[in-house]
Amino acid sequence: MTDFFAHKTAEVSPKAKIGDNTKIWNFVQVRENSSIGKDCIISNGVYIDEGVKIGDNVKIQNKVSVYKGVTIEDGVFVGPHVCFTNDKVPRAISESGELLSASEWKLVPTLIKKGASLGAHSVIICGVTIGKFAMVGSGSVVTKDVSDHGLVFGNPAKLQGYVCSCGKKLDRINEKRYNHICTECNKKYKF
Amino acid sequence: MTDFFAHKTAEVSPKAKIGDNTKIWNFVQVRENSSIGKDCIISNGVYIDEGVKIGDNVKIQNKVSVYKGVTIEDGVFVGPHVCFTNDKVPRAISESGELLSASEWKLVPTLIKKGASLGAHSVIICGVTIGKFAMVGSGSVVTKDVSDHGLVFGNPAKLQGYVCSCGKKLDRINEKRYNHICTECNKKYKF
Amino acid sequence: MTDFFAHKTAEVSPKAKIGDNTKIWNFVQVRENSSIGKDCIISNGVYIDEGVKIGDNVKIQNKVSVYKGVTIEDGVFVGPHVCFTNDKVPRAISESGELLSASEWKLVPTLIKKGASLGAHSVIICGVTIGKFAMVGSGSVVTKDVSDHGLVFGNPAKLQGYVCSCGKKLDRINEKRYNHICTECNKKYKF
Repeated sequence: MTDFFAHKTAEVSPKAKIGDNTKIWNFVQVRENSSIGKDCIISNGVYIDEGVKIGDNVKIQNKVSVYKGVTIEDGVFVGPHVCFTNDKVPRAISESGELLSASEWKLVPTLIKKGASLGAHSVIICGVTIGKFAMVGSGSVVTKDVSDHGLVFGNPAKLQGYVCSCGKKLDRINEKRYNHICTECNKKYKF
Repeated sequence: MTDFFAHKTAEVSPKAKIGDNTKIWNFVQVRENSSIGKDCIISNGVYIDEGVKIGDNVKIQNKVSVYKGVTIEDGVFVGPHVCFTNDKVPRAISESGELLSASEWKLVPTLIKKGASLGAHSVIICGVTIGKFAMVGSGSVVTKDVSDHGLVFGNPAKLQGYVCSCGKKLDRINEKRYNHICTECNKKYKF
Repeated sequence: MTDFFAHKTAEVSPKAKIGDNTKIWNFVQVRENSSIGKDCIISNGVYIDEGVKIGDNVKIQNKVSVYKGVTIEDGVFVGPHVCFTNDKVPRAISESGELLSASEWKLVPTLIKKGASLGAHSVIICGVTIGKFAMVGSGSVVTKDVSDHGLVFGNPAKLQGYVCSCGKKLDRINEKRYNHICTECNKKYKF
């Protein structure tokens, strides 16, 4: 038994594994066989599907739906209203009108790497990997992989540059060993 | 009285009509004079407004808002976070600052036909008809009608091709009686 | 003590200030030190963050998240699923993997002026001001200020014309003192 907080209106499965000091807020649902690390914040109305894996120090904002097949590494920020998916071509029925069973569709996994930020109200199409400390702008529709430190936005989301671990957009430089610099941290990067 | 399941946190109006074997999950609200068919799944946080008509075998994913004036036929898949609307030019007040009453706006109806799929996090502007087994890509803003088996995506959503009843995108062929084929089902179509 | 209604499933902080005749519906959360004016409607699943200021006669539709730093003046219509933000470059952790504390990010305020309408499922990037009786189309990503009576939509949202206080799109005219007219109200405007 770990020491986490869950608001009285939250529905947390006793079969979910929740780390120390994690806070689960109002109207959240956490389903069976999911795991959430320590020091996470799971905000109002979030839905964590069965089998989802979430690391430590993750912040998930209001109303986010995290579906089975999604893995979220340590230190990821998931903005409000972000929507994950796990089915590329969803259908409720077959052509003859029969209800499709769970066995008739193929789950497509998604990976969000350490320190990445997913902007508010973006949607992540299943099958993508979002790199370390990447940043997805608000309102994006992410249909392709995003590289480490990549900055993407738009519908569909396109690469618009690179960001520092601190979040600031990097400036281009022309040095032998580096081609980007953060004017805030003075940290240099090579992409 | 029919035999459906509603989670203890769901708020289902006794004046709603719910079909056999339908499942209504956590934090759902179903309002008066709406009707939901049999074998449906109404997922976490969905809102079904008064007077909404929903057929059989319909799957509505998390947080969807279905407003008065929307009709959803049998076998439709509504992805997570999808938002319907029923007012083209919403205002809360008149120019003089008076609160507008319900009688001062015009409800615009929307129709989603049998077997269609609405991708995650898309918004359906009222007044449109979405055709049978059409597919709306995730994150779309649908402002116009979609034909039967039409595949649309983007903001605004545009026709990008056609899909099979099974969900697969169709290939073009050049036959006398058909111009599209599903390489999965071998079913041919003429559009 | 004022005379407002809150549904039994709503979580309203006793430290929030709520005006007379305001209605707070199912699964809403209203946090401490926020203030909501009179005659407002706060619909299903809305989240009002601490410190948020909302005027009179405001209508907020389902699932909207209004974050600290957002000010909503009288008579604003906020469509369903609209998402506000208050951090331009959100991060959960520093480069070394340490959890960032609340003091380490800069809140960026947002202002929605009297009578404006925010269309369904739009996202408002923090830092913008949306003018009086402006209209934001459904599914927009608002990244810049919108002028009074401005009509914007798209991702990113762009100015597409002007709207009347009644909501109707204005026609251009060529008069000495006016350059736009509402064919419904006959009201003329100069922009």
